[in-house]
Amino acid sequence: VHDEITKAVLAVHAGRMVGDGVHSLDIEQITSRIETWDDWYAAWAHMGDKYEALADSALEHGRRITAGEFYWQASICYQYAQFLFVHQPELREDGQRKKESLYRQSAPLLVPPAERFEVSIDDVKIPGFLRVPDGQGPFRTAVLLGGLESTKEESHQFENMLLKRGVATCTFDGPGQGEMFFDVPLQPDFERYTSAVVDWLETRPAVDMQRLGVLGRSLGGYYAVRSAATDHRFNACVAWGAVYELSLWDRLPELTRKTFCYVSGKNDEQVAKRYLLEAIDLSRVTDHLRGALLVVHGALDDVWPPSEAQRIHDEATNASTRDLWIEPNGNHCCHNLSPVIRPAMADWLTQHL
Amino acid sequence: VHDEITKAVLAVHAGRMVGDGVHSLDIEQITSRIETWDDWYAAWAHMGDKYEALADSALEHGRRITAGEFYWQASICYQYAQFLFVHQPELREDGQRKKESLYRQSAPLLVPPAERFEVSIDDVKIPGFLRVPDGQGPFRTAVLLGGLESTKEESHQFENMLLKRGVATCTFDGPGQGEMFFDVPLQPDFERYTSAVVDWLETRPAVDMQRLGVLGRSLGGYYAVRSAATDHRFNACVAWGAVYELSLWDRLPELTRKTFCYVSGKNDEQVAKRYLLEAIDLSRVTDHLRGALLVVHGALDDVWPPSEAQRIHDEATNASTRDLWIEPNGNHCCHNLSPVIRPAMADWLTQHL
Repeated sequence: VHDEITKAVLAVHAGRMVGDGVHSLDIEQITSRIETWDDWYAAWAHMGDKYEALADSALEHGRRITAGEFYWQASICYQYAQFLFVHQPELREDGQRKKESLYRQSAPLLVPPAERFEVSIDDVKIPGFLRVPDGQGPFRTAVLLGGLESTKEESHQFENMLLKRGVATCTFDGPGQGEMFFDVPLQPDFERYTSAVVDWLETRPAVDMQRLGVLGRSLGGYYAVRSAATDHRFNACVAWGAVYELSLWDRLPELTRKTFCYVSGKNDEQVAKRYLLEAIDLSRVTDHLRGALLVVHGALDDVWPPSEAQRIHDEATNASTRDLWIEPNGNHCCHNLSPVIRPAMADWLTQHL
Repeated sequence: VHDEITKAVLAVHAGRMVGDGVHSLDIEQITSRIETWDDWYAAWAHMGDKYEALADSALEHGRRITAGEFYWQASICYQYAQFLFVHQPELREDGQRKKESLYRQSAPLLVPPAERFEVSIDDVKIPGFLRVPDGQGPFRTAVLLGGLESTKEESHQFENMLLKRGVATCTFDGPGQGEMFFDVPLQPDFERYTSAVVDWLETRPAVDMQRLGVLGRSLGGYYAVRSAATDHRFNACVAWGAVYELSLWDRLPELTRKTFCYVSGKNDEQVAKRYLLEAIDLSRVTDHLRGALLVVHGALDDVWPPSEAQRIHDEATNASTRDLWIEPNGNHCCHNLSPVIRPAMADWLTQHL
C-alpha cells in the first residue's frame, strides 16, 4: 500500500519508466519496497546497486554487452531514485552523481557506444554524449533534450530507436539538468546551450549538418521549440508533451512545482514562480521556427493541458510543415501509449530530416 | 476481476509474456478486457489486430522498421491469444495460423531479417527461420527450441540478445509445435527433426558448424538435451526450465495436462498420459551428451520441480563441462527473473560456442 504522493507519482509516471527502459518486473519489485514517499529513493537505489554489482561481475568475466546494459539499468534506476526527490537534497544530489557515473561506465560498452563530449560555454562545460549508427556517414542527427526531470542518460531507448533507423543521436545536460545543474540552474536562454552543442556537432564528420533535428520531452519540448526557432541549422523539431508558458503554475502538481523551485535554485516558491513566468515563455519565438514541426500531446495530460500544444502549433506559422497529434487517450507525454507513439515520433523525425 | 483460471495463467506466465516482448502497458490493457478465461482469446486478438493495422499503415508509408516491429508485436499477441486455449480448438487453430502469417510478414523487415526455410523430413516440411548478425561470418550459431506452448515466433527477443552478441539464430517448429502440429503431433523422436535442421544448417555458409549450440525452454529444454545428446554436432546445450520425464503428470496444472493432450493429438487424458510417460523420458540419453551443458531452473517452479534439472545435470556425466543454476527465487523458467537470467544464459551460450 502506497501513500498518496507515491500513488500520484506512479499514476503519472509508471508508463514513462517502462518506456524509458526500466523492466516492468523490476518496477513491481521496487514499488513493493515502498510504503511512503520517503522510501522511494532507497527502493530504487537498492535495484540500482543490484545492477551495478551484476555489471561489475559481467565486465570482470568479459561479458561486455551485458555489462553495458546492466550499468545502464543501474543508471536509470538511480535516475528514478532521485526523480522528484527534492525534499532530501543530499540524496537527490547523490542520486544524480551516481546516475552520471554509472552511465559513464556503460557508455563505451553500449552498442553503438556513446562518445562523451564537453563543450565550453561561459566559464563552464556542457556535458553530453554522441552515438553514431553503424555504416557509412555522415548521418542524419537528432539532438534529444530532457526537461524538468529528465537528463541525457534517460533518452537511451529513444536513441536506440533512432539509431536503428540510421539517425545519430546527441544528448546533453543544459541549465538546471543533471550534471549541469551543479554549475548552472535553470536559465531563460536554454537555446544558447543547444547552439553551443550544435557548434561542436559541426566539427564532427559523422554528422550531416544539412539533416539536423531536435526533439524534446515535456519541458524539453519547450526547449526544443526555443532551440529550433532561434537556430536555423535545425530543420526539424518535435515538441513532445511541451508547455508554452507557466501561467498555469498554481494548477501544477505540487511535486512538479517544488522541482521547478529546486532546479531554478530558488527556495521560495513565490520567487521561483515570478522568475519562471518570465523565464519560460514561447511568445515572440514560435513564429521564428522555419523547419518542419511536430507537436505531440496527450488529451488527458494532467501536468499541462493540450491547449499548450495547440498554441505552439498554431503560432508556428513559418514552419515548413506543421503536424499536431493530440492523442485522445494519452496522458502526460502520452507515456501510457509509449509502445506506439514513440516509434511514430521516431519515424516522423527520421522522415523529416 | 479475473476468474481462477485467468489468475492462475497470469500468475505463472505474466513474467514470460514481458520477457518475450509483450509491452507491459499492453498486458494491462489486454487483461482489463478479460473477466473469464473464455474472454482470453478475444482480448489478445484485439491487441494483435491493432498492431496489424498499425503495421499495414507503417509499411504503406515506407516506415519499414516500425512495420516489422508491429507485425511482430501482432504475431506475439496472437501467440498469447491461442496460448493454452485448447478448449476452443477452432480459435486455437485460427490463432496459430494468424501468428504464423503475421510473423512471415515481419520476417523480411526485422533487423537483421529472418530468412524462412523449409526442410523436408518423411513426407512433410519442417518450417523455420535463420537470422544472421551483421559482419563477416561464418558465425557461432544457436538453435532455439520451443516447448509445449512456445513456437519459432516466440524466441524473437532471445534471438535479438544472441544476435547482439554475434551469434546467428535458428528456430523451427517441431512435432506438436506451431505450424508443424497440423502435420505431425508430439513425437518421441524430436531430435530427429532437430538433426534434419542441422543438416540444412551445414549447407549455409553463414553458419560455423564447429560452434553450434542448442537452447530450449521448458519442454524445449527436454528437447534440447535429447537433441544435443544424440547429435554431436552440437557442442553446447542449455536446458532452461526443463523436465526429465512426466511421472509427475498428476501434479501438473490442469491446463498444462490438457495442452499436452491437444499437442499429442489424444483426446483421452489417460491415453495421452500413457503415451507421454513413454514418449518423454531422458533415461539412457543424458549420458550421451558430450558438449558443454548448462541447466537452469527456478527453485519455486510450480510446473515441474528443480529436481528435474538436478537429475539432468547429475546424469550428464560425459558433458565436457556442466553448470547447474538453481535460482532460489525463480519460478517456472525463472520468468520472473528474466531481465537478469536471460542475458546470463545468452552470455553462457556465447562463451561456450
